Amino acid sequence: MRLTRYFLPVLKETPAEAQIVSHRYMLRAGLIKQAGAGIYSWLPLGLRVLRNIERIVDEEQQKAGHIPLLMPTLQPADLWRESGRYEAYGEEMLRIKDRQGRDLLYGPTNEEMITDIFRSYISSYRDLPKTLYHIQWKFRDEMRPRFGVMRGREFLMKDGYNFDVDRESALEAYDRHMVSYLRTYERMGLKAIPMRADSGPIGGENTHEFLVLAETGESEVFYDSAILDLQLGERMVNYEDPDQLKQIVSEWTTPYARTDETHDAALFAEVPEERRRTSRGIEVGQIFYFGTKYSEAMGATVTNAEGARVPVEMGSHGIGVSVWWGRSSRPATTTRASSGPRASRHSMSASSTCVRATPRRMPPAPASMPACVHWVSTRFMTTATSGRERSSPPWT
Amino acid sequence: MRLTRYFLPVLKETPAEAQIVSHRYMLRAGLIKQAGAGIYSWLPLGLRVLRNIERIVDEEQQKAGHIPLLMPTLQPADLWRESGRYEAYGEEMLRIKDRQGRDLLYGPTNEEMITDIFRSYISSYRDLPKTLYHIQWKFRDEMRPRFGVMRGREFLMKDGYNFDVDRESALEAYDRHMVSYLRTYERMGLKAIPMRADSGPIGGENTHEFLVLAETGESEVFYDSAILDLQLGERMVNYEDPDQLKQIVSEWTTPYARTDETHDAALFAEVPEERRRTSRGIEVGQIFYFGTKYSEAMGATVTNAEGARVPVEMGSHGIGVSVWWGRSSRPATTTRASSGPRASRHSMSASSTCVRATPRRMPPAPASMPACVHWVSTRFMTTATSGRERSSPPWT
Repeated sequence: MRLTRYFLPVLKETPAEAQIVSHRYMLRAGLIKQAGAGIYSWLPLGLRVLRNIERIVDEEQQKAGHIPLLMPTLQPADLWRESGRYEAYGEEMLRIKDRQGRDLLYGPTNEEMITDIFRSYISSYRDLPKTLYHIQWKFRDEMRPRFGVMRGREFLMKDGYNFDVDRESALEAYDRHMVSYLRTYERMGLKAIPMRADSGPIGGENTHEFLVLAETGESEVFYDSAILDLQLGERMVNYEDPDQLKQIVSEWTTPYARTDETHDAALFAEVPEERRRTSRGIEVGQIFYFGTKYSEAMGATVTNAEGARVPVEMGSHGIGVSVWWGRSSRPATTTRASSGPRASRHSMSASSTCVRATPRRMPPAPASMPACVHWVSTRFMTTATSGRERSSPPWT
Repeated sequence: MRLTRYFLPVLKETPAEAQIVSHRYMLRAGLIKQAGAGIYSWLPLGLRVLRNIERIVDEEQQKAGHIPLLMPTLQPADLWRESGRYEAYGEEMLRIKDRQGRDLLYGPTNEEMITDIFRSYISSYRDLPKTLYHIQWKFRDEMRPRFGVMRGREFLMKDGYNFDVDRESALEAYDRHMVSYLRTYERMGLKAIPMRADSGPIGGENTHEFLVLAETGESEVFYDSAILDLQLGERMVNYEDPDQLKQIVSEWTTPYARTDETHDAALFAEVPEERRRTSRGIEVGQIFYFGTKYSEAMGATVTNAEGARVPVEMGSHGIGVSVWWGRSSRPATTTRASSGPRASRHSMSASSTCVRATPRRMPPAPASMPACVHWVSTRFMTTATSGRERSSPPWT
């Protein structure tokens, strides 16, 4: 496709609704367009990047041996009544009545539906372990959607669910997810730190959030700067080897790293002073082990090796695919200002996402996502900061 | 992935809710699972086939020079108030109120939203022609969802919209879509006949429906059997050559082919008697030219070569991605019984969809989608028709 035939509508003016840099650049570079409060259309170039992110997430999950399927966006309320969450979930759940008066909801997450699929077909430990995931649009009716796709209401998420016969095996699944997420972030050029977190309405005893350091972050975070040196790099990961996974998880979870929800001032004080850091962070993923919370409520049991029927052990694990990009699409200068030179270097490291995203016959683009937006913006827009007008590109 | 690790839950019993063969086989072969009335989960093998269909549709659209983007599933009602369709659309539209009391709807189609995107960025004939499309989940609240994914409520559709400066150019876009759809169907191994059709709530003067002959079809169709001999085959199509496109469209629209809605008994009587056929058909796509219906209502105008502002000429063009497969996933015997040997041969012709869909390390599978379902069903299920029980596969 020739560039003159493409549809890359750049804006000269900064849209009034954009409060943060990433949102401004995404709008001005013709990547997204707001369709309603917290609801966005992905314009052609934005869609290419979104699909590349989706592909990376998908590939890393399959490498970990996880199995893709696809659940629908709308769910019957009755499933959520079984777990008790239909009433408990609160106003972020978008509740819908169809023409027959049946209660539906737009899925904010899928624990109930995947548990229903599991219990319909699997009843023996011989079919375990299994981890099923999907990449599907979700809706959470946030009171104040803002920051563009970063805090949108309709968003694309990968959510995966592990099913295991016992706690030990479920914790291996937890480790497997942490490692697969670390690999995914590295491949995306993001420095995401796993931090002990609160489980919120999903429930669960073991949970880590992955946070990227950024001044626009909504959480205050406390960490040992030693964690910034960790890198998987070219290390071979064998997802069939629980000991290796445990070893990697231990490396990443030993340095102190917590959000304000789980922060422990006394423990933090034990970190050598020169490595003690306070910053702001943006959540880019979360993993949970919650045991039998849903399987007990919904009767998802399996026969174990001793012939007894036990509720299946579960966890759930999510990465936002559409929100991510909003979280990484600010130019280098902004990232650097907020997160220090080391994190900035990592978050600007090579990712082929933007290169593949650019339409054919466009000149070569830089290799990282933040740089991609920066590149589009400096070449094809009159930048707000330059102080002088450039000529518009020929196709606008 | 080893087959024992995969998740392909086949059923021994025929589920009571399945009224037609394709639905029965899809359920029994572990391809889909009902989540609610007219709402389905795509199990791992089903998802692989769905993604392959999506890829074929996508590739053929890009070959035609059409540009992909992605609009959200939920839309603000105000857009539909501009066109007058918010009230007019009827009960098939799923209307939703969010927590702030704002009216949303789950998009059944996207004319309003794409017109809004167009008018936000494009205002000159120099940027035309443009055809934008997306492949996204839709919802239509059918009174009686049935036949599995074939008449589901939540379904995946490719819908494309052309924008042209005048009627002549818009009719070229119409031809381009007809040819790209014919190519898509051939690649899928489906014999789909373009038939003059009613435009329904979309509105429009030129419209063709594409129908596959099948006894489960809901439309009565009348056609000249000569149309079954037409084939694009290896013909090179140049989408930049309107004369070639017009020629192909003429070949496919000259033989009599109409649904009962547009049937003309007097014209049909002119078809030589031995070629006059009556059958039933299933809709697998539709193209429309509707001119300025939406652009006038929503103020989407462009400056033409003479400097005058004119409402942009539009059309919309849809292929159901998820419904399709329900329409083609019945074993050969059933297809043959309903549509005669010729149509059956075509609908069974080679498609690599199923082969690519089968998990690695499974034995080779046949090459067509109907045959794929048949293959899964005969190998991994106790068939209902065989009269004797086979042993279950090892992983159930």
